Order: sequence, then structure tokens, then C-alpha cells
Amino acid sequence: MLIVMKADATDAQVAHVCEVVTELGFKPHPMPGAQRTAIGITGNQGAVDPSRFENLPGVSEAIRVSKPYKLISLDLRPDKTVVRVGDATIGGDELAIIAGPCAIESRAQAFAVAEAVRRSGARFFRGGAFKPRTSPYAFQGLGEEGLKILAEVREAYGLKIVTEALDETGVDLVEKYADVIQIGARNMQNFSLLRRAGKSHVPILLKRGLSATLDEWLLAAEYIMSEGNYNVVLCERGVRTFAQHTRNTLDLASIPAVRRVSHLPVIVDPSHGTGKNYMVIPLACAGVAVGADGLIVEVHDQPERALSDGAQALTLDQYEQLVQEVRPIHEVVSPQPVA
Amino acid sequence: MLIVMKADATDAQVAHVCEVVTELGFKPHPMPGAQRTAIGITGNQGAVDPSRFENLPGVSEAIRVSKPYKLISLDLRPDKTVVRVGDATIGGDELAIIAGPCAIESRAQAFAVAEAVRRSGARFFRGGAFKPRTSPYAFQGLGEEGLKILAEVREAYGLKIVTEALDETGVDLVEKYADVIQIGARNMQNFSLLRRAGKSHVPILLKRGLSATLDEWLLAAEYIMSEGNYNVVLCERGVRTFAQHTRNTLDLASIPAVRRVSHLPVIVDPSHGTGKNYMVIPLACAGVAVGADGLIVEVHDQPERALSDGAQALTLDQYEQLVQEVRPIHEVVSPQPVA
Amino acid sequence: MLIVMKADATDAQVAHVCEVVTELGFKPHPMPGAQRTAIGITGNQGAVDPSRFENLPGVSEAIRVSKPYKLISLDLRPDKTVVRVGDATIGGDELAIIAGPCAIESRAQAFAVAEAVRRSGARFFRGGAFKPRTSPYAFQGLGEEGLKILAEVREAYGLKIVTEALDETGVDLVEKYADVIQIGARNMQNFSLLRRAGKSHVPILLKRGLSATLDEWLLAAEYIMSEGNYNVVLCERGVRTFAQHTRNTLDLASIPAVRRVSHLPVIVDPSHGTGKNYMVIPLACAGVAVGADGLIVEVHDQPERALSDGAQALTLDQYEQLVQEVRPIHEVVSPQPVA
Amino acid sequence: MLIVMKADATDAQVAHVCEVVTELGFKPHPMPGAQRTAIGITGNQGAVDPSRFENLPGVSEAIRVSKPYKLISLDLRPDKTVVRVGDATIGGDELAIIAGPCAIESRAQAFAVAEAVRRSGARFFRGGAFKPRTSPYAFQGLGEEGLKILAEVREAYGLKIVTEALDETGVDLVEKYADVIQIGARNMQNFSLLRRAGKSHVPILLKRGLSATLDEWLLAAEYIMSEGNYNVVLCERGVRTFAQHTRNTLDLASIPAVRRVSHLPVIVDPSHGTGKNYMVIPLACAGVAVGADGLIVEVHDQPERALSDGAQALTLDQYEQLVQEVRPIHEVVSPQPVA
Repeated sequence: MLIVMKADATDAQVAHVCEVVTELGFKPHPMPGAQRTAIGITGNQGAVDPSRFENLPGVSEAIRVSKPYKLISLDLRPDKTVVRVGDATIGGDELAIIAGPCAIESRAQAFAVAEAVRRSGARFFRGGAFKPRTSPYAFQGLGEEGLKILAEVREAYGLKIVTEALDETGVDLVEKYADVIQIGARNMQNFSLLRRAGKSHVPILLKRGLSATLDEWLLAAEYIMSEGNYNVVLCERGVRTFAQHTRNTLDLASIPAVRRVSHLPVIVDPSHGTGKNYMVIPLACAGVAVGADGLIVEVHDQPERALSDGAQALTLDQYEQLVQEVRPIHEVVSPQPVA
Repeated sequence: MLIVMKADATDAQVAHVCEVVTELGFKPHPMPGAQRTAIGITGNQGAVDPSRFENLPGVSEAIRVSKPYKLISLDLRPDKTVVRVGDATIGGDELAIIAGPCAIESRAQAFAVAEAVRRSGARFFRGGAFKPRTSPYAFQGLGEEGLKILAEVREAYGLKIVTEALDETGVDLVEKYADVIQIGARNMQNFSLLRRAGKSHVPILLKRGLSATLDEWLLAAEYIMSEGNYNVVLCERGVRTFAQHTRNTLDLASIPAVRRVSHLPVIVDPSHGTGKNYMVIPLACAGVAVGADGLIVEVHDQPERALSDGAQALTLDQYEQLVQEVRPIHEVVSPQPVA
Repeated sequence: MLIVMKADATDAQVAHVCEVVTELGFKPHPMPGAQRTAIGITGNQGAVDPSRFENLPGVSEAIRVSKPYKLISLDLRPDKTVVRVGDATIGGDELAIIAGPCAIESRAQAFAVAEAVRRSGARFFRGGAFKPRTSPYAFQGLGEEGLKILAEVREAYGLKIVTEALDETGVDLVEKYADVIQIGARNMQNFSLLRRAGKSHVPILLKRGLSATLDEWLLAAEYIMSEGNYNVVLCERGVRTFAQHTRNTLDLASIPAVRRVSHLPVIVDPSHGTGKNYMVIPLACAGVAVGADGLIVEVHDQPERALSDGAQALTLDQYEQLVQEVRPIHEVVSPQPVA
Repeated sequence: MLIVMKADATDAQVAHVCEVVTELGFKPHPMPGAQRTAIGITGNQGAVDPSRFENLPGVSEAIRVSKPYKLISLDLRPDKTVVRVGDATIGGDELAIIAGPCAIESRAQAFAVAEAVRRSGARFFRGGAFKPRTSPYAFQGLGEEGLKILAEVREAYGLKIVTEALDETGVDLVEKYADVIQIGARNMQNFSLLRRAGKSHVPILLKRGLSATLDEWLLAAEYIMSEGNYNVVLCERGVRTFAQHTRNTLDLASIPAVRRVSHLPVIVDPSHGTGKNYMVIPLACAGVAVGADGLIVEVHDQPERALSDGAQALTLDQYEQLVQEVRPIHEVVSPQPVA
């Protein structure tokens, strides 16, 4: 069920509808838009009678939703969501660039990379403190020590911190340090983690699962939003196919596919999406050209010594080249609005 | 590192080697076998010097392990693991049949199915109390109430209970009720859950992920074993491919592939592996013929009313037919040892 | 359009309907069955008016076909097609075993393998004279010299010869020597070749393409049948997926999927379907258990010296073991009719 | 074997080396480059002794080739191949745009589309006269009548004609009319067709197969080149994966992957690569940004009435928009050389 308010509905009228929804035992999700506010309803078993709402003051119409998702949908919110992270945004006019090492390995490494990220004009710094590794015997990240280094990076360079949480207790800890919490591809259908992320006040970067369909990915975002956290950024990072010339097959068609049904911003990860250093820049260019709201790329001051994912990390020089190549493409595909 | 004890090594000698390993800051994993005991070592960063162990009493040899996994390997344990669940087994001479509904929906439903499962001679009853669902709005299971019904089923029919845990706190609860804890395909690389399962005293049924490689699947088992729980059963449940005539593509070649490197038992799920009622029996036959140690199948007394996965559930009659068809195949492919 | 004749319709009535179809500019495909004859109509652009046929003598009903295929369908022929190859059959009660080397390399090699195939009781000998190779520089087969060796094998051992044709002129040549013409996976949608095969009097073994959907595979068979050759045997040989523990992923669910819509016999190729010697026997067992009408397997007297596909070829001893393992499974899954 | 001539080697010296190669029973493939000429050798069984060539006049060095391909390789020709089609090129500085309907349906349709293609500044017109269709009952193209219409289009608009040949006799016919012969995805490993195309004087556009690996694709090009036709253009058109939001998954990483090993130009087909009208423009932009040498797109004056592939065809207006969007991206990623 989706309740569309009139263009001139007052805040009090919106609040009243939400109260009625709550009294009925459901959960209201008000989404203010440029033209009007809509209110999604979740928590209902089966259909809800629209006539309960249609005569409330300020209501324009009540619409039954037949699709599997509600809150991620353009039906609920026709304007694109702009996720605000302090004074930076994802989904707005600016191309969001998130760069940094796969894992935080040391203060020196983090600062060396962060300096270059800052210099490039990017606003976000990525780096893992908790690493999901295929083998139990591989480097698992520095843990809270890594988070503290990230906090220092923010302090020193004014970069927003993007870092991963692996489980529910991980969110408790990470949300103390991070500006954006990443949920990794292997956790895209870890529904307990999604629910916990939905209760966080911190925006969530949700990577697409290794073999997730579009609907599964969007419904994972729906899990987060259904708990009340509407600041979700989707991230295409490649899917698993028969092809062996890349680590994953970057499915750039998912960007227009997301746009067609959802208001959520979506970015591209050309590092995991290819797994090969020499492919990162061309696929970053392609990601911007296809219309993504941003990029997340792995950068290392010494890729050959990286404790994880060294084969795909850019050097500092390569990263600088990437930024110089993608910016003019972004200008071409997203002309700035006339002032 | 893998320490192979002499055939006549005493328990005290094994215990002494384990003590030395522990003193060095590592974790010993003793695996008794038909011929001799071997001790896996984990927790080391980098290589360990074999000469530290080779001269200890009872040690035959110390071997460096170059493969990514240690504990799941035939190198450590040449004999197949037989997982004992009370008086039933998985991995022994008997074909292990695990049957029951996708989700526990009511006491009446559970008992109706359990009666048929018991009658068929199967030893294990499956049924979900916590369901991982693609949509946040779909039926999520009865929760602890479902676990209580499962406990009643065990009491009434003497069946061993197999049920899923979705997260770490879920394991805390499920291990109070279940005889075997299932980890689902979407959680195969939920490493926090795997570690928690590794600390449980209950055997773990580990489903293959939707797009997991053989190594990723075996390393997920390695996560569990590295925490000390060696009772792991693998389950092939189909993988995601381009093919649309089934929900998943059942990859039966994974059974001999697992056998070639691991001592762990492996079973087949023809229900999720096909997603279509009419395919379950032929693929169950194929699974037994290829050499699986057992089957896990979905059965419902009223599939058309099932709250989840009704399209693939067998009726009680079809389930009876399945058991009658697979048993003679099992006899043919696994001749009983001469008394 | 599908015309179903009455159970007691005479041959003359069937012939008359076929004449009327021909006069209208279409092509009739009469398919005699156990209960009644049906006549498929192809060559029409758009729908044909059923009333043109319903009043002809002997006609029971005329049915519009909404599915993309007509001639392969159980609607046209409810009884399974038994392809007769001299005194041997594929699709009947007997399990059809087709065995031999990937490529004919020499008379000595062919005879050494054929002797073992004959001894096993199999009725069909396979061997490539024209090999489709990924590289232009790889061994391409002995050509017509290979076909002559195959003819000698038939003479000497009484085995039916199954060998591949790569193009239209290849069919011209191969049909002079072969008892069954194979169309390989890479040629499954070589429509010119399919049409030419449809004009041959020799049965066709049609392998599934590397990434063919069920419909594409069945429509490839439809191409052959639409030209008048109704003796088509389908062959599942594995599809391409992300999995790397096998060369292809053998999709055994395709056997019941074919059965559900088509009367054509279907066999399994566990050699290409796995690409690994040690997997061929277990997957052959699985293929028989799932209900396939036969197997096609690669056997070589000296696999380590094979000019192609040596890694998957069985030795003569392994082949003998395979036959001994699959026969009892076939007896269990396909009980002989009571006399 | 690869013979690298000295930078100052004369044409006579190159010709002499080719003669020696021919006398030895092999086939020479001279490839002139900006710095020097190299000569590939094919037709040898096993290794050739380099010393036979190293002392011939003008030879710099003779190199053994260990990779599966020779002629497509950057080792043989370090400069990118520019395929010249009359006064147009593919692989040069200009972005090659090939546009037109899936199938030629009528003179009126072809001319309506061609007029728009010409107006956009594109140099190539595509349109199928022979269509490979999954169903034998679907529209198969106008045949030679379609080719004649294409010849009229060339005459009227000065556009170069790109059209498909399905088999060897098809090449005989199509090469009389076409400027570039297309080999479709389903025929990528139709080796008889590839060899015939290799004997044609007309450039070949080779589409990637539905599940072709990079090596298989490049080796298909090698088949063509090994017969002497060096004017091959590769075309990425999407591969088959589990993803269902597109008809195929466009694998843009194949562009840099081809660049890394081959001198052949490579273009992108965003129409088949997505199968959805609304995705064609963004993926075309991405294809240009990733560095492709051109695009091939389906355009129809009345997509809703198209006899094939209507769902992915652009309208004339959309096509004009596409050209306007991709040109500035091409300028950004491929800065024109300073005069």
C-alpha cells in the first residue's frame, strides 16, 4: 500500500496519516519528494483496504502495490534519492568517488593513500577493518584498530569514511566510526545484517551479490529500508559468469535497470568488477558513461605488497589518471543545470 | 602443517603433541583414523618449522600443507568422516534421508509429514523455523514456536531434527533444539555464522552457495572445522546458471569432486536443486547413483497450500515413491560389506 | 496446426489429409502412434483455419499450436520415439551405449577400442573423422580416411557407427558411411547444417549447445524434423557455467525436462559433460538413474597419447567397469515389461 | 613461428622470406607495421627451427610462439589494425558507427532507416538478408532480394553495407553485395564458415559467441586470418548469464582484454548486448567510453512492426540522440592527434 499525499498537504496531515497507519499495527514510511510526499506502508499481512485512507485530510490517493518491493520504488518516490553524508552527497549532481585500499594495513599506508585521495578532489575514503575472506587462514583485517586509523584519516583529511561491517555486532561497532557502512557482496542476503543496518542512522552501501538478480538486490535494499533507514546506495561490483578474463563480469546494464524502477543512487566498483589493474580505468570510464552516480575504487601506495586484492589495486599515479579521465566523461553525460 | 602420528602412537603421545602445538600459540586438531591419528595445526601466520615436531615421541612425520584448506582434506584424514547423530549416521553405509516441509507452519502440518517420514524408514526430519526470504514481506517462519514443534516431532517419532540457523544468536537458540544445524546457501560465506557454528557441539549441514566454487565451499567448511566442530556435512543444492527450465542447476559432478579432496560426507538436495516437483524423484535417483551419502527433500501434506516453496514440495505419496525408487539404486552403487 | 486422426482412420484417409495440406502449400508431417496418427503442419505463415480439416474423413480434431515447436512435441506424438538403427535402437527398452575414441587416429587404435566396445555388449561405436577444434592449428581429424576406418569397424564388429558432420558438404560425405550423424554442440544453431541433416535418411544425434536453453535445443531438433527427418536423438553434454571443477556442468535435469514436452529420446555424454576421467563413471551412473535412454562415452586404448580430449577418455578397463556399473542401475530404474 | 624483419628490410627481402616459408610447405602471413614488417608462419606441425630463417637477408629475429594464437597477436603486429572499407575505416581515429534494421523487410523500410543513418554522419549500414532464427518457423529474411535492396542503399546514400552470411554458399553470394560480411554469434565456432570467410576479399565482422571465452573468440578470428583474410573486426555483443534483466550480459571488459593481446579492432553491439530499447543509449555510451572502435546498433523506422528484434530497436529519433551522446564521449576518450 502506498498513500500519495496532495501537493499542498501539510506536515500535520502527513503526521496524522502516519499515526493512523501505526494504530492499525502497520509501519509508515513517509518519503518527501519535490512535488509531494508519499507514505509507504509495510508490516501488513495481505492487502489493506485503501478506503481506510482515502478520505483522510490531505490524502490524494491510496494505491495497492503489486510489485515485490515498495520502498525502493519510483512509485513511492519519483525523485532520485540524494544520500547526504555531511557536506558530501551520493546521487546528486557531483560524481561521488570513493577510493582507498582494500584493507587498512597500517597508519602509514592509510595516510599515504588518503593524501592522494584528498588531492584528487574525491570526498570519500574506503578501507576495510573487518575483511570477509574466503579462507579462515587469510588476513582478516586490523579490527577496531583499523577503525581508529580511519577516524584519524577523517580528522586529518576531511574525507568521509566508508567501511564494511560483517555482522550485527559489527554494525554496533562500525557505526561509531564510519560515515557510510558497506555491506559486502557475500552478505547481500544476510538478512539479519540487513535488518540491523536498517536500524542504523548511518547510510548503507549495499553491494550486489555475486549471482544476485536485480530483484534480489533491490529486495535486499528493501530489507534495510523497511526498518527505517532510507539512505541506501547500491553498488554494482560484477557477477559470476563463465568468463575467465576477469575475476567478475561487470554488468553495467544494471545501472539503467535500477534507474528504471528505483530512486536509489547506484555506483560502480570497477576494481572488484574486473579484478585486474589494467582494466580498472577503462571500466571506470564506462561506469560513469552509463550513468552511475559514483565509483568505488581500490588504491594502494604499494600494490605489490598489499595483504589482499593487490592484483586489482591502482597505484597512486594510476588513481590520479583515473580521476582525470572520468571527470570530463561525467561532465558530458551529466550536463550541469543552468544556474 | 600436518603431523602424522605413528600407527602405534599412544593417546598420551597424541595429547603431548597437542600440548606442544598449543604452547607454541597454535591450535591442534587431532583427527583419529582407521590406521593412525593425524593432527592439523591452524592459527599459524606463515610456515611452521617441521623439525619442531618430528622428534616428538610417536610422531611419524610433519608435512607442510600447500593447499588452501587443511582440515577438510584427505591428507589429514584418509577415511571418510561418519557424522553420528544419536543412533543415526550420515556418511556411513546407510543412505541418510532427511525429509520434511520447507517451513514448519503448524503442529498439524509437521506431524502429518513426520508420520510419513517415519513410516518411510528415514531417520531425519527437516523443517524451517527461521526462513531466509528474499522479500522482507514474505513469511519468515514461526521462530522459537517452530523449534518447539520440532522438538515434539523428535519426541513423538524418534526422528533427528535438522533445522536452519540464520545468524549467531540464532545458533544459540537452535542448538538447544536441533540435532543438526543447517546453514543455508545464502549464508555459505557468512563467516561470523560459520565461526559460531564451529563452536557448537551440534553437527552442521552446510549448503553450497548459489555461485560457490568448490574451493569456496570447502573453505566454508574449513571455517567451521577450524573452530573445533568437525561434524560437517556438505550439501549440493544446485547453482545459478543461465538455464531457466529449473530454479537452479544441480551440479552432481560436485559429489565426486568433493570425494577426491575431502573426507566430509556430502548429500544432495533435489528439491532446491530443481525447484520443480516433477523433477525431484529423477534427480534424487541421480544423486544417489552419483554416490551421495544422502538426500534432503521437501515434503508437504498439502503442497498447494505451502507458505513457501510449494512448487517443489513432494506430496506424501510422491515422497513414499521416492524412497522406494532410491533404495535399490543405493544398494546397487554401495554394496554392503560382506559380514 | 496439428491434425489428430481418429483411432480407426485408414492409411488412405491419412494420405488424403496430407494431400490437402500439400495442396494448400504447406508441408504435412504424419506421425503414427500407438493409439492414433497425428499430422503436424509446417510451412504456414500465421494461423491456419482448423475448419478446413475438421470435416475431412478420418479427422478427429484440428488443434492450433501455441508453443514455438510442433513436431518435437508430445502433443503431436504421445508415445516416445524409438530410433531404429538397423537391429539396434535408441529410445526403446534397451540402454543405448555409444562408445569409442574422441577422434579416429589410426586403424590400430580404432580396432583396439572397437574390440572392447563390442565385448561390452554395446551396439554403437563413436569416433570423429572431422573434428571441430577451437584452434585452427590443432589436429582436425583424418577426414574421409577416418570414415573408411569406421566402415571397417562396422564390418568387423557389427557395431553401428556414430560420427560427426561439420557442414552441409560434410553431411553429403558422412551419410555414405555413418549409421548415425552427430551434430556437435558448437553447431547446434548452425541452421544450414540442421536443414541439411533434416534431408538426410540417417538418424541425427543432436548435442545440446554450450549455453543452449531447453527451447533452443528443442527448436534445433524442430529444424531437422521440419525437413522430414524424424529420427532425432538429443544429447545432454553439459553447459558452460562459472564452475571450474569440471569442463562443463552436466545438467541432468534436462532429461526430465525434455521428457515432459517431447517424444524424442535423450542420452547423456558424461565425458564432455565433466571433462575429467575420474568423474565419467559416477556421472554415467547418474545419467542412467535420471532416466536417459543411453550414454555416449569416450574410450581410448592409450588415453595419455590421445590427439584430443585425452583427459576425459576412459581406459578400456575403466570402460568395462562403467558398463558393469550402469547396467544394474538401468534395470532398477527401467523395469522390463512383464511378458 | 614469427619472423621479425629489420626496420630497413626491403620489400624484396620480405618477399624472399615468404618464398622460403612457402618452399618449406608452410604459409607466410606478412604484416607490415609502422616500425617494421613481421611474418607469421602457419601450417607447420610442431616447432620450426628458427635458424632456418635467422640468417636470411633482412631478418632481425625468428621467435617461437607459445600462445595458442599467432596472427591476431600484438607480437606479430604491434600497431592496431585499421580495417579500410572504401573511404571509411574501422579501428582508426574515427568512431565507426554501423546502424540499420535487424532485418531488411522492404525497400521502403531500408531507405527510411538509411536516410537517418546517412544524416547522422555514420558510414555503415547494417541489415540482415539471411537471418539465423531460433525457430524454423520464424521470418528468415528476404534472401538475395534483401541483398539487392542493400546494394541500392549503398548506391543512394554512399553507405558501406554490413550484412550476415550464414554458411559457405552464403559467403559466395553475400560477398558480391556486401562491404563487410558479418558472422553471427551462433556461428562463431562454425569452422567451415570461418575458413570460407578467410578466403574472402571482404572484411569480416566476427561477433563473440553467446558463451565464448576470450581465447575461443580470438581463435575464431585466427581461423579467418590463417586463410589469408586479415581484415577482421571483433564485436562484443553480450554473453549468456543468469541475469534476466537483459537478454544478454554485455561484457565490456572484453574490450580492454582484446586490446591487451590483439591488434584487431573491436566494436560493441549495445542492441543485442541488452535486448532492451531503453538500455541501448547508456550502454552505447559505456562502450565508447571503455574504448571500443565503434558501435553496431539496430534502428527501425517502426520498431513496433519489426519482423524481428523489435524490442531492442531504436526509433529514428532515439538513434539520432545516441549519435549525439556518444560523439562527445569519443572525443574525450580518444583525443585527436595534434596536427
